[in-house]
Amino acid sequence: MHILITGAAGMIGRKLIDRLSSGGLPNSDEAVDFTLFDVVKAPVPQSSSGTIKVVTGDITAPETTINLVAGRPDIIIHLAAAVSGDAEGNFENGYRVNLDGTRCLFDTIRVESERLEYTPRMVFASSLAVFGAPLPNKIPDTYHLTPRTSYGVQKAVGEHLLADYTRRGIFDGIGIRLPTICVRPGNPNKAASSFFSSILREPLIGQEAILPVATTVRHWFASPRAAVDFLVHAATLPSSKLGPYRNITMPGLSATIQDQIEALKRFAGDRAASLICHEPDPVIERIISSWPENFDASEALRLGFRAEASFDEIIRAHVEDELSGKLEARKPCC
Amino acid sequence: MHILITGAAGMIGRKLIDRLSSGGLPNSDEAVDFTLFDVVKAPVPQSSSGTIKVVTGDITAPETTINLVAGRPDIIIHLAAAVSGDAEGNFENGYRVNLDGTRCLFDTIRVESERLEYTPRMVFASSLAVFGAPLPNKIPDTYHLTPRTSYGVQKAVGEHLLADYTRRGIFDGIGIRLPTICVRPGNPNKAASSFFSSILREPLIGQEAILPVATTVRHWFASPRAAVDFLVHAATLPSSKLGPYRNITMPGLSATIQDQIEALKRFAGDRAASLICHEPDPVIERIISSWPENFDASEALRLGFRAEASFDEIIRAHVEDELSGKLEARKPCC
Repeated sequence: MHILITGAAGMIGRKLIDRLSSGGLPNSDEAVDFTLFDVVKAPVPQSSSGTIKVVTGDITAPETTINLVAGRPDIIIHLAAAVSGDAEGNFENGYRVNLDGTRCLFDTIRVESERLEYTPRMVFASSLAVFGAPLPNKIPDTYHLTPRTSYGVQKAVGEHLLADYTRRGIFDGIGIRLPTICVRPGNPNKAASSFFSSILREPLIGQEAILPVATTVRHWFASPRAAVDFLVHAATLPSSKLGPYRNITMPGLSATIQDQIEALKRFAGDRAASLICHEPDPVIERIISSWPENFDASEALRLGFRAEASFDEIIRAHVEDELSGKLEARKPCC
Repeated sequence: MHILITGAAGMIGRKLIDRLSSGGLPNSDEAVDFTLFDVVKAPVPQSSSGTIKVVTGDITAPETTINLVAGRPDIIIHLAAAVSGDAEGNFENGYRVNLDGTRCLFDTIRVESERLEYTPRMVFASSLAVFGAPLPNKIPDTYHLTPRTSYGVQKAVGEHLLADYTRRGIFDGIGIRLPTICVRPGNPNKAASSFFSSILREPLIGQEAILPVATTVRHWFASPRAAVDFLVHAATLPSSKLGPYRNITMPGLSATIQDQIEALKRFAGDRAASLICHEPDPVIERIISSWPENFDASEALRLGFRAEASFDEIIRAHVEDELSGKLEARKPCC
């Protein structure tokens, strides 16, 4: 079994590799060879049952994708992307990486499959950024894609290409629309969504965090652990189980900021929650107001995808995976 | 006023130019200069109030689109496309013309608009091929795009690009999803939809036509005259009237083959209708079964787009526009 992961140096990529290299694929004893691709060198996992090839390069360059596909990976997990803020700030680079890069990879597989029979499983990481206001309270899989960012448009285009290349038998594709990942490890960043993670992550280690929106704001979440679950499940799901659509909204937790705070209190006490400083930011409030709040993910649930059912579970996953199960909450309120 | 029309040598392009060159834009006395682009030379209209420049070339070549945009047309009507059957039969050419060509045109406008303030109206001819089975009986504008052909995917991608380039203020775009055009002048062709026109067009001039599907088949139609109306209306519609979506399903007539035949009888008698020979074709029956039957086009109607309300009107438009108002129905049944 040979798995190619693009975007392997990213947060989700690294967690996915850790999972697959330590446990392999579910219900399989087969050794796994990895090709790990990114613009920078992906870290090599500590243990692995097979070979590991680390490749760097530009995914829009055919020589890169030809090199990646030459080993005829059985499963391709395509995570590589210019992130939302980059794609919005740099029009040309966003389209280059997210549209041309995806198409370059897909087309290299097409040429390889025309040369000699080859139909790998392709898992494409899409995003709920394909949906933008006006939106219904609960969005079904049959709702039209109306992205309000260039990143969302590029992911929507990727979904359409995935469906067409699959229909033509070039690969066997599944596009999964990931929820907002929370708690995201690391430091706060300039993404409008950054606070969803920092209002939990920082108080859990005794640091202050800023909440720029009202506690009534509702959004759609899953943990990094759930995101890795989705990718592994999509990589191994028999295509015979799939319905007519190859792009599927992943399950998640529809929760308010207040739900996040209540779970934080239950987990780390009122003192941790008191580290959250409410400093309304009209710009972030406006951006967030166009984001989806809730989805009907019944198709994904039918297919066996599973997410957390509460923020207690999401926080527990973070503390176990990032803090070795230990808590620290010492500083008083701002 | 300067209007650029791509795909100007096609059936709709030529009818559009005839309309605009003889009558100009609605509610305007302004002279109209034309740039007419296609892979072959577009015919020059007989009368025109302004200059006419005919350009041929490859729309995926930047030197072509730079030349087209250099004159800074106020209105661009982008009809150029590899048609459905071509795009399905020739994967690479379909994506090249319909995706790369559209993007090349859009990006040339982006560069021009960054150089010096410029925001033309862009009318993009999309298609109901962006919708594929499974479909509800009546499809709303909020229904997701699930094309079942590469042509439909390419049109869906064009819609997403149009929305993003409009959101960014690069141009002021409107994408209009045209119904199946009927009665299409000319000869029967190999398109699966060809019979929808030929079962009216041929009997109206006393010739036989083959009907490959059941008379209960329902589909969504508008005349070539209505298609030209849509394009002219989209070219001049104030953007302040538009709602949140820039891609809109055009109104049409949801009708069965039986409705077509009854209208033919009313117009040209039972003898004309008897020239239709029912020869079921399982391949065409299967293709047609995945096509949409009816739409809720209320947004387009709100914006003032109008189509025919009966097949009597569609046949009358054909006889007036193609047959100088004269009928001929002489041969007996097959």
